[in-house]
Amino acid sequence: MSEARFEVDPWTIGIHGLDADRLAHEESVFGLSNGHLGWRGNLDEGDPRGLAGSYLNGVFEEHPMPHAEDGYGYPDAGQSVINVQNGQIIRLLVDDEPFDLRHGELTSHSRRLDLRDGTLTREFDWTSPTGRRVSVRSTRVVSFTHRAAAAVRYEVEAVGGACEITVLSELLANEPLPIVHEDPRVQDLLTEPLETVEADVVGDRATLIHRTRRSGLTIAVTMEHHVDGASAATTTEADEDLARTTIRARLDPGERLDIVKIVAHEWSSDLSAATLRDRAETAADAALADGWDRLVDGQRRTLDDFWACADVVVEGEPRLQQAVRFALFQVFQAAVRAELRSVPGKGLTGSGYEGHTFWDFEAFVLPVLTATAPHAAEQALRWRHSTLGHARDRARLLHLDGASFAWRTIDGRESSGYWPASTAAFHINADVAAAVLHYVRATGDVDFERDYGLEILAETARLWVSLGRHDADGAFHIDGVTGPDEYSAVVNDNVFTNLMAQLNLRGAAAATRRHPDRARELGIRGDEPERWDAVADAMHIPFDHSRGVHPQSAGYTDLERWDFEATSQDQYLLQEHFPYFDLYRKQVLKQADLVLALHLAHEAFTPEEKARAFEYYEALTVRDSSLSASAQSVIAAEVGHLELAYDYLAEVATIDLDDVHGNTHEGLHMAALAGGWTAIVAGFGGMRDTAEGFLFRPRLPSRLARLGFGVRIHGETLRLDVTQTATTYRYSGGDPLRIRHFDEEIVLEGAEVTMPTPALSPPGARPTQPAGRAPLPAGEAFDQPAGEPG
Amino acid sequence: MSEARFEVDPWTIGIHGLDADRLAHEESVFGLSNGHLGWRGNLDEGDPRGLAGSYLNGVFEEHPMPHAEDGYGYPDAGQSVINVQNGQIIRLLVDDEPFDLRHGELTSHSRRLDLRDGTLTREFDWTSPTGRRVSVRSTRVVSFTHRAAAAVRYEVEAVGGACEITVLSELLANEPLPIVHEDPRVQDLLTEPLETVEADVVGDRATLIHRTRRSGLTIAVTMEHHVDGASAATTTEADEDLARTTIRARLDPGERLDIVKIVAHEWSSDLSAATLRDRAETAADAALADGWDRLVDGQRRTLDDFWACADVVVEGEPRLQQAVRFALFQVFQAAVRAELRSVPGKGLTGSGYEGHTFWDFEAFVLPVLTATAPHAAEQALRWRHSTLGHARDRARLLHLDGASFAWRTIDGRESSGYWPASTAAFHINADVAAAVLHYVRATGDVDFERDYGLEILAETARLWVSLGRHDADGAFHIDGVTGPDEYSAVVNDNVFTNLMAQLNLRGAAAATRRHPDRARELGIRGDEPERWDAVADAMHIPFDHSRGVHPQSAGYTDLERWDFEATSQDQYLLQEHFPYFDLYRKQVLKQADLVLALHLAHEAFTPEEKARAFEYYEALTVRDSSLSASAQSVIAAEVGHLELAYDYLAEVATIDLDDVHGNTHEGLHMAALAGGWTAIVAGFGGMRDTAEGFLFRPRLPSRLARLGFGVRIHGETLRLDVTQTATTYRYSGGDPLRIRHFDEEIVLEGAEVTMPTPALSPPGARPTQPAGRAPLPAGEAFDQPAGEPG
Repeated sequence: MSEARFEVDPWTIGIHGLDADRLAHEESVFGLSNGHLGWRGNLDEGDPRGLAGSYLNGVFEEHPMPHAEDGYGYPDAGQSVINVQNGQIIRLLVDDEPFDLRHGELTSHSRRLDLRDGTLTREFDWTSPTGRRVSVRSTRVVSFTHRAAAAVRYEVEAVGGACEITVLSELLANEPLPIVHEDPRVQDLLTEPLETVEADVVGDRATLIHRTRRSGLTIAVTMEHHVDGASAATTTEADEDLARTTIRARLDPGERLDIVKIVAHEWSSDLSAATLRDRAETAADAALADGWDRLVDGQRRTLDDFWACADVVVEGEPRLQQAVRFALFQVFQAAVRAELRSVPGKGLTGSGYEGHTFWDFEAFVLPVLTATAPHAAEQALRWRHSTLGHARDRARLLHLDGASFAWRTIDGRESSGYWPASTAAFHINADVAAAVLHYVRATGDVDFERDYGLEILAETARLWVSLGRHDADGAFHIDGVTGPDEYSAVVNDNVFTNLMAQLNLRGAAAATRRHPDRARELGIRGDEPERWDAVADAMHIPFDHSRGVHPQSAGYTDLERWDFEATSQDQYLLQEHFPYFDLYRKQVLKQADLVLALHLAHEAFTPEEKARAFEYYEALTVRDSSLSASAQSVIAAEVGHLELAYDYLAEVATIDLDDVHGNTHEGLHMAALAGGWTAIVAGFGGMRDTAEGFLFRPRLPSRLARLGFGVRIHGETLRLDVTQTATTYRYSGGDPLRIRHFDEEIVLEGAEVTMPTPALSPPGARPTQPAGRAPLPAGEAFDQPAGEPG
Repeated sequence: MSEARFEVDPWTIGIHGLDADRLAHEESVFGLSNGHLGWRGNLDEGDPRGLAGSYLNGVFEEHPMPHAEDGYGYPDAGQSVINVQNGQIIRLLVDDEPFDLRHGELTSHSRRLDLRDGTLTREFDWTSPTGRRVSVRSTRVVSFTHRAAAAVRYEVEAVGGACEITVLSELLANEPLPIVHEDPRVQDLLTEPLETVEADVVGDRATLIHRTRRSGLTIAVTMEHHVDGASAATTTEADEDLARTTIRARLDPGERLDIVKIVAHEWSSDLSAATLRDRAETAADAALADGWDRLVDGQRRTLDDFWACADVVVEGEPRLQQAVRFALFQVFQAAVRAELRSVPGKGLTGSGYEGHTFWDFEAFVLPVLTATAPHAAEQALRWRHSTLGHARDRARLLHLDGASFAWRTIDGRESSGYWPASTAAFHINADVAAAVLHYVRATGDVDFERDYGLEILAETARLWVSLGRHDADGAFHIDGVTGPDEYSAVVNDNVFTNLMAQLNLRGAAAATRRHPDRARELGIRGDEPERWDAVADAMHIPFDHSRGVHPQSAGYTDLERWDFEATSQDQYLLQEHFPYFDLYRKQVLKQADLVLALHLAHEAFTPEEKARAFEYYEALTVRDSSLSASAQSVIAAEVGHLELAYDYLAEVATIDLDDVHGNTHEGLHMAALAGGWTAIVAGFGGMRDTAEGFLFRPRLPSRLARLGFGVRIHGETLRLDVTQTATTYRYSGGDPLRIRHFDEEIVLEGAEVTMPTPALSPPGARPTQPAGRAPLPAGEAFDQPAGEPG
């Protein structure tokens, strides 16, 4: 865990100075995206850098997937996100001296991500080795309003004396990446992933068109500039992997060269290069025509709309205030214009996990989008729906009915290399279904349910029926599958899986009954809903009566306990120091599994069962996964361990700002960031989704004086304002909204309602974690000194 | 299953004609080996061919092992047997017309493997397209007496008219192989595995020296000739990958050119090329000096010694008679001069399984060697002992004590790519230990036990102690491991594993007590033997009381039964048509597992338990593995289903001659061939090894009138002559031998003893197999018409 370095501020993430070793971390934190196009926060001039990154959602290269020993159903191809043409680059020369942070004198350097403006601003003052001084300000947006476009405003001012300024603004393809892939076939495809199709210049508008070799995607990028404020001369050239606009100007002291650069991308698997060129150029033209101010206004307006509902207000913990807004901003910008594309595990902030999307998108990220940006949630679910063809093919290959969604993928095809932790992890199908059910309940979006949701629910319900089996007593079992915890695999009756499948089956039956015409269109047979309900009713949920807890899976609580006392702290992550066979056969959790079920299938457990289960699994959970702490926080809060819940929240909230897992340089942890919101809203807010409506049990930890948050319900905003003693509910909708506050039903109709917080019955001793694996106390996590110039 | 084609003969395997499509199969069947050097039965002239193969035991190339997703403890390198320099090649030109089977007229062509002479003889008459006729006879040996050497006698006779004969006798390296490896790194290393070090000619003696690129092995091969019978002129040249001796002679009608070719190989990982050259040349000189007749005599003498004890005599089934001798011959020649090298799964007859050695060597092949060629057994066990360093490293990597032998390997290092069916299959360690215990009991070789056996037993015993755990009641469990059946994996308390581990632990404790000085030398602590015995005593053996059978592993009998009725016959091998997760979670066996335990840990079961277990698992076993039928045969015989046992024996006995599994072209199934012997000796002979001595329960199926076999016990030969009604025992040793015949103890002291066969209590209905998976009735398997010229 590294020290906090960003300045504490409620609405910005700022840093002074520059530390080359931390650059890759900052590039992820300062990533800008609109869900379609993502720019890591690379320095304008390209060097130094941690990891160059310009990504288009859905653009990947396919590569052979090697297996030491092949097996039936193993994917033979993998997918890897690639760097598209990099439009970030703006190089500066002062009197023909190339600007380089490491030479000359850098008097000041700062960067600031503004969470309300959606801009990344950088300012520095530099004196060249020959004594010329400039002041530079660059501001970036990846546009929410012009989906294909990003823009940079680059301002250079001569300070103290006149100087000759040259700006080289570029599009650069096939930048060398620090990829080291063992298999030379993969290395070869990913090192220089782009083949040149075309390079064109008309006037000062340059367009490059490239194609990926194996996945066959064509990507066009256009660059245009608006230059202002000095008698500048521009020339533009383009050739293969490089387009360059050169802007020269002589600046008198105090004079300023002001450049706006527009970069627009279009890509397709089937459109021609000519069409894509037209589209990219049109998109660039449109953004340029709008101009810088309207681009920036568009960011602000979009975010104002978002924050109006989504904002979380924290009193008492400035770093938490900042962190939760940062998390919401990142989740939002990862999805807002994704439009029928998925949200990768890292968003578009890095190439970690090869740019793949996993189950945690639906289980962790989608609830946040549903509550704060439901249109983006709907688009993302429609992306999953669009992969049903691949999911049906996969189910057929596995001799199963219905559809089996890919465990990791970019385009919907299974790209996993290790079946016990992927193919066997069928719960992803129920996670997708749960996201559908939750989205429909929260939005009332009947059209979506009919047009898309029902098909997902029905196909996944069919999968469960074919995957499980009835025993002699009629109980339904799902054997040989893997639940969320990756330190177990291929087990029988994983409680999380069975409960989520049960919700999936019941949800499918109910949706079918709500949409009989559509059900017929989809070929859902008349007897299927009853069958699904019957299977759900028969679902076996193992329970260990002697210990009074639900086992994570059948027999789990009888397994040997991991020897935590003999495990040193430097042996974590356990999977990097112990073989799978040993992890799998013992009681040790990488991440919350049953505890996640306590949240997502909350109606299946009594309060006493929840308390006992939480205590039991706390002692076994090592949190080697960033997905764990948020679920632990939610349940710790529910069972009354508010301070422990707060410690977990602190860990989640600081995960990327403080680089808690040491790998933020590969990209942000989108699901964990979303989990921070969930720890607040479902944890301290106590929000639960039930068939009868939303339920809240707000209760604050001692360090928080006040907590405010909003959720979108049926197109309107419900905001909660929680203090230590009471909660005020405000609903923006005209129709009355029925909710529950603890055990009390309230109907919200216009006026705000304030309800007292009932007394907390003492929860008993604070549960213990494996030796050395307790979370850092929130006080320590949040109180780390913010960084100063490095 | 293909038709029998070889002529039925008690002591030879012969075939007339030539079928290019069957060539690869015949090359395996006609493979010659001495355990050190192996030649597939390629045609002398090199073309046509199925798969060129000249192997040196232990010579392999190492290659990168790709993993789609890496994991802790995964090997990063694989090992693959390679073709060394091919000395088989003798090309013939008649009046400068190259001899080619596919041109001109082949009047006759036959090949015959002589199981008593240890020779492969080929005869053909050929008329060239221009009308010249020759009669050719080539005879091969891979010498038992000159371990480094193979020899070919090549005789050409002019028939009808004079002709000019040219013989090109070669050493050829880097012959193109039909390897298609997905990973180009592997392909590259294995396609042309040999780098030239040196090529030398002195007179007509040629030597090539090559080196493998990555494994760093140097291999020298020398070729010399003795030419007789015609005024022949010879010249020899050598360059890089080819050495060639050209022999020209003009033959009058009836005149004969008689060439003896000697090929000798030496290799090493550390000796210099110069040393290896000396050794190869000296070995070739020595064999040439001995001359053809003495080489052939040496084969005969070695085999006479072998057959004197080992021969199995069958009356009533000529094809079984032939098959069992073929099997014994192949097992013998795979091991006889291996000398501190292992015996690969395919022996030296093909490159299947990359030339790796598996657990079935110790479990299936070693008992045959122990009974028929104990010196070879001892050498092979010493090979395993020599890999203890690697096995200790592997155990340490897995955080276990003692030693964990490689699941698949050539040089002792783990080369498996799929851990659930390799690393987790810890039973290999007990299989090795069992082979040690059996060898020591059968031979009384106390020196071996002290010098090598004890260390293997102790290190594997330590492994078990660290791998398992005591439960609250003190019972010892071994969780998360894989037993012999490959359609299950990563299970708890696999009965086979636990019982074999129990024998391992007890054997280690007893051996330690027998060799206290050596135990101290080895650092075995004084309390370890008691510990091992205590763990063995506490070993948990699950039993399903409701069904009255031992589950294959804990809970196995509660799993869903595979839907055999819905499985079509073309979906076998199941692993090629269904995903592992589905196979693993259901009751379906690739191969005998618990049934193998009924044999190898026979004292742990009552007769009733055996009968019930056999019936239970028969209904679930699909025999997708060639290792299965022999174990099923042994137990079928024990529980009284003699005709079923005989059907299984027929399948095993014909496995390679009839290519039952369709993959004999990759090499012979050594363990299955050995299993044929076991089905006879342990099945119908009823032989069992106990701490109190050997036990026999001989009983013949109806089709056999008489069965004779011999086993080496304490350096002497015990022969049994079994009829339907009685068994005669003859022991060659001077000391009395105490054995049991059914429930009766006999002491054999010189004179033969004849004992009546007790009446068989009717065993009940014949057990059934999964739909379509019953063995072919022995009558059909054995009565298939033998082949005629194709």
